[in-house]
Amino acid sequence: MSLSGRLIVIGTGLIGGSVALAAREQGYAGHVIGVDADRTALERGMALGVFDDSGMPANPGPDDLILIAVPTLAVPGVLQELAAADGGFAGGAVVTDAASVKGSVVAAARDLPGGMPERFVPGHPIAGSERSGVTAARAGLFRDHRVLLTPAAGTDPAALARVRDLWTAVGAEVLEMETAAHDRVLAMTSHLPHLLAYALVDTLGRQPEHEEIFRFAAGGFRDFTRIASSDPVMWGDIFSANADAVISILDRLTDDLARLRGLLAQGDRTALLEAFTRAKRLRDDHVANPGVDHDRN
Amino acid sequence: MSLSGRLIVIGTGLIGGSVALAAREQGYAGHVIGVDADRTALERGMALGVFDDSGMPANPGPDDLILIAVPTLAVPGVLQELAAADGGFAGGAVVTDAASVKGSVVAAARDLPGGMPERFVPGHPIAGSERSGVTAARAGLFRDHRVLLTPAAGTDPAALARVRDLWTAVGAEVLEMETAAHDRVLAMTSHLPHLLAYALVDTLGRQPEHEEIFRFAAGGFRDFTRIASSDPVMWGDIFSANADAVISILDRLTDDLARLRGLLAQGDRTALLEAFTRAKRLRDDHVANPGVDHDRN
Repeated sequence: MSLSGRLIVIGTGLIGGSVALAAREQGYAGHVIGVDADRTALERGMALGVFDDSGMPANPGPDDLILIAVPTLAVPGVLQELAAADGGFAGGAVVTDAASVKGSVVAAARDLPGGMPERFVPGHPIAGSERSGVTAARAGLFRDHRVLLTPAAGTDPAALARVRDLWTAVGAEVLEMETAAHDRVLAMTSHLPHLLAYALVDTLGRQPEHEEIFRFAAGGFRDFTRIASSDPVMWGDIFSANADAVISILDRLTDDLARLRGLLAQGDRTALLEAFTRAKRLRDDHVANPGVDHDRN
Repeated sequence: MSLSGRLIVIGTGLIGGSVALAAREQGYAGHVIGVDADRTALERGMALGVFDDSGMPANPGPDDLILIAVPTLAVPGVLQELAAADGGFAGGAVVTDAASVKGSVVAAARDLPGGMPERFVPGHPIAGSERSGVTAARAGLFRDHRVLLTPAAGTDPAALARVRDLWTAVGAEVLEMETAAHDRVLAMTSHLPHLLAYALVDTLGRQPEHEEIFRFAAGGFRDFTRIASSDPVMWGDIFSANADAVISILDRLTDDLARLRGLLAQGDRTALLEAFTRAKRLRDDHVANPGVDHDRN
């Protein structure tokens, strides 16, 4: 199922650029327009041939699909522009977003003058890279990845179907989820690991011998801290938008670390072994280890 | 430089098996003997052709090289056997080990009847895998990896040279380090990350919705928790042997996490951004990201 109108991508970074590339490669969109307040990023995307055209069209209509791919805290401002009299919602365009936190986006959409727009479908592609920007974009980014949509009760089924079509076309598996459940689960599997990686690198960086420390770090450390190379602005937004859920799981982890610290101090090797064995079994059973892993966020 | 005597590998797991394969492939050792109290592991290694022969020779002599590749807490027992009247030290064999913690090994060596043997060279290959056992062994495991040796003041230079030759022959870069510095640095770059990975998986596994949590975990989580699939017995030993150094850096990380929690609770996006930016810069500058990464522990 291809898009009869235009694909308008607001935010021409890694995600927006990759959607543009993939949607054209897969024949889903014939005309892809890039929109970005950052002229440099936009010109780079145009120079790379990621977009056919640039600049927000004056009259987005019911056949168009608008993807908001800006950092999480910038989504509300874009929604407000689209809700203005001459914006996309008035013209009937279908609008979706790609922010990693959904509660703050849904709250902003509900706060719009007309309430939550029927043609707005909140979404989150679980894909990314520690590299950012349109130069890191690639058409295969979403292949075999999941996209979580958190539609409201009043979401237009046709709008939902169009957003599903986009993500299916670029190779993703589309699932629907309740907004709060999305933010709770992502706090655990994505946001907390990022916080730990940032904290570990920052803590080690403060040690007087930090040059030596990093010199002797091997592959385990490299993999473990890869996500600490992620875009700080994007992650500043995510943690601000999902602070409550992150704090909740961080507190549970901190309790567990305190318990493990106690076992270390007591030299209770048996109890440590039990905890490690339980964790290994959980990971081996539940977390797949594909040979080639392009799944990066 | 090849070995004129026999290479005797005590402990036929991933490390011992990989050394055996690599030493023969590189023409360093012509005769490799596997020794293991675990008959199944030893028979598996023999069946796979990893070793030429099995069982401790009656008379290890000055031309032989003995590698102790058993879990950290089992090293002292092996050292005691080698220090017995008919053991390897009496015959003049050079002995090294591959344990991940060096302080406990050096302490055990100093406690031997004759004190620290001159022909004993403590060592630690910084290589491994989340897979364990001789079936996971491969000749390339140490290529472009570091091996840290922590010789004592009285270590025989000829013994040190022989151990250096072994590791150089199998493709590693050999460095010398002071024992306590080794354990402190490894606590930070290897042991603490493993503890965090085990703790995170264990914490998430206790959540009522843990099946759903793991279902939505993507590549970042997979990489971050890969080391939680490591051998629990090996890691139980490491944490028991290096508890003080691990507790010390864990406490500093816990302080940092508490500070980040405060910033989250206050919604201080600016300070979060500063911490993330600092961590990203440190990692980008100091932790290499090779395209192909076989460096696994």
